[in-house]
Amino acid sequence: MPVMQESAEAQIVAAHGGGGALTQALIRERVLARLSNALLDPLTDGAVLPWSAGKLVFTTDSYVVTPIEFPGGDIGTLAVSGTVNDLAVMGADPVAISLGLILEEGLSLDCLDRIIASIARTAREAGVLVATGDTKVIERRSEADAGLLINTAGIGRLRPDARLGVERIGPGDCVLVNGRIGEHGLAIMSVRQGLEFDTPLRSDAAPLNGLTSDLFDLGADIKFMRDATRGGVAGVLADVCEHAGLSVEIDERQAPVSRTARHAAEMLGLDPLTVANEGKLVCVVAAGDCQRVLQRMWVHPLGRHAACMGVVTDRRPPLVELVTRVGGRRIVQRPHGAELPRIC
Amino acid sequence: MPVMQESAEAQIVAAHGGGGALTQALIRERVLARLSNALLDPLTDGAVLPWSAGKLVFTTDSYVVTPIEFPGGDIGTLAVSGTVNDLAVMGADPVAISLGLILEEGLSLDCLDRIIASIARTAREAGVLVATGDTKVIERRSEADAGLLINTAGIGRLRPDARLGVERIGPGDCVLVNGRIGEHGLAIMSVRQGLEFDTPLRSDAAPLNGLTSDLFDLGADIKFMRDATRGGVAGVLADVCEHAGLSVEIDERQAPVSRTARHAAEMLGLDPLTVANEGKLVCVVAAGDCQRVLQRMWVHPLGRHAACMGVVTDRRPPLVELVTRVGGRRIVQRPHGAELPRIC
Repeated sequence: MPVMQESAEAQIVAAHGGGGALTQALIRERVLARLSNALLDPLTDGAVLPWSAGKLVFTTDSYVVTPIEFPGGDIGTLAVSGTVNDLAVMGADPVAISLGLILEEGLSLDCLDRIIASIARTAREAGVLVATGDTKVIERRSEADAGLLINTAGIGRLRPDARLGVERIGPGDCVLVNGRIGEHGLAIMSVRQGLEFDTPLRSDAAPLNGLTSDLFDLGADIKFMRDATRGGVAGVLADVCEHAGLSVEIDERQAPVSRTARHAAEMLGLDPLTVANEGKLVCVVAAGDCQRVLQRMWVHPLGRHAACMGVVTDRRPPLVELVTRVGGRRIVQRPHGAELPRIC
Repeated sequence: MPVMQESAEAQIVAAHGGGGALTQALIRERVLARLSNALLDPLTDGAVLPWSAGKLVFTTDSYVVTPIEFPGGDIGTLAVSGTVNDLAVMGADPVAISLGLILEEGLSLDCLDRIIASIARTAREAGVLVATGDTKVIERRSEADAGLLINTAGIGRLRPDARLGVERIGPGDCVLVNGRIGEHGLAIMSVRQGLEFDTPLRSDAAPLNGLTSDLFDLGADIKFMRDATRGGVAGVLADVCEHAGLSVEIDERQAPVSRTARHAAEMLGLDPLTVANEGKLVCVVAAGDCQRVLQRMWVHPLGRHAACMGVVTDRRPPLVELVTRVGGRRIVQRPHGAELPRIC
């Protein structure tokens, strides 16, 4: 009997999602134990935050990545970083996030503990509070592995000095990226395919609000920022072209891609430009401020490999064009979406 | 070929979640087409809202109900009502919600359209904007039915006149409910079990912020409110006892339960007190204000069957006790959680 009980307690069961005593115990012992803070602890229907007058930014993302743990992070790192980054690239200082856990029956409590620990660590790193949450349980989707899905929403304060907008972009502006691209998506795909490399490929998942805050503090003319998640850098640049009605010319030699990532992309038949990142942003800056912004990125731990990889032009029709290593030119398309399922 | 294409387009495929062209088309044609508003339309990483100084309430809930469409509503009605209600019972006026859609491969686009229409209708009814969103695709969990999961987070402004807190509850306070209980959970369970009744049992899912706003406008001494979702009225009262250190005595004859719900509960072996509601709140009011609050509820469409079903006492130890129809007494326990999986 004690052994059976032990084993029953070691994983998520349907009743953990029923809203009764078992849900309460799970939340207190597994979630609050690590995420405890003044906003979350009352476990009321919502968190109450003082808010001074000013613009608020509100965002949400769900995370459905498989596998849920991978080199360089896990779905918890991702769920906090992704939502923090959405606020950061809007020009906001993140304040609080919500945490919606959807657990599959059979998920091991040890695994849940590790994910919650990642959430706590990443939230601390980003300086945001997990202010409110919800836990549900669903049946597992496959025999192989019981996982979990996470939704985070976030609220932040818009910085009065942020003047971002795709309509501010003009010909001659520089297109910067804060480091090596494609590493999140390639790390996930390599794990799925069982590929191994001499230098391990790790997800770049990280909260970027410290970096963006440094950039705004510079007072440089930053016109646009976007984190290059699903759809990768190519997806962001396609959006820029579409909404600004301008072209972007990128230089393959300047695009920061690690040797391992390039190798992995070749083996997987993927273009690093279209692969998801979780700690990279594309930033469009007035040409005169490019060098200052780049230098500020270089001294930040998450900007060491930053580069100016392209320039905005008024060539018609609006297109993203890549100048290849050997001087050729090819058009970079917005990815269709089928390449990388459940990558974030 | 045209036929194959038609059939491929009629349901969700993995690539709808890839963040590329197909994701964009889905969001524009299926989601934005119905939810369009000034905050959501730019499709940026987040919505920017002006916010005057004052307290903000932030909440989240995920919805995993099966089946996703049921008598009286669907998962979309639920996802908007649930989050709006969490804000309302905190004493906040809901302002905006986020919408995280997690679609299963194989979900029919017709079904998705109906759910989005419900979301739009319920948001309009509640007077909240769907300000920001995210769409992901996961593999389907069973051959039988491809469904979807929804997370909504919400932000609202705390009303300066709301003075809610379990610590304000005292002996003699009245326990009110705004109508017939148990109907959401019983409607879902009846569908699952294939039970039919002469009078159809319908989910009570509805946004309660109009009702709560009317109650606050009264100026009555409302001490505590909570929507009675998972765990039902019994779960809310168990929380009151635990946190206030007081007892609650409820009168079975005063608890509003429809004949059909009572009949369904008997057939399903469930106690209506422990079954989830999605349009019912428990409200603790100073005895002197009970009648005023009740009368205000009665004139609201969502309060027609409101009742004072109990009273707070200082009996020790703190317990919820039910006085039965025949004058007996039984202790009402917090439900364990196993009774009703995936009910909301």
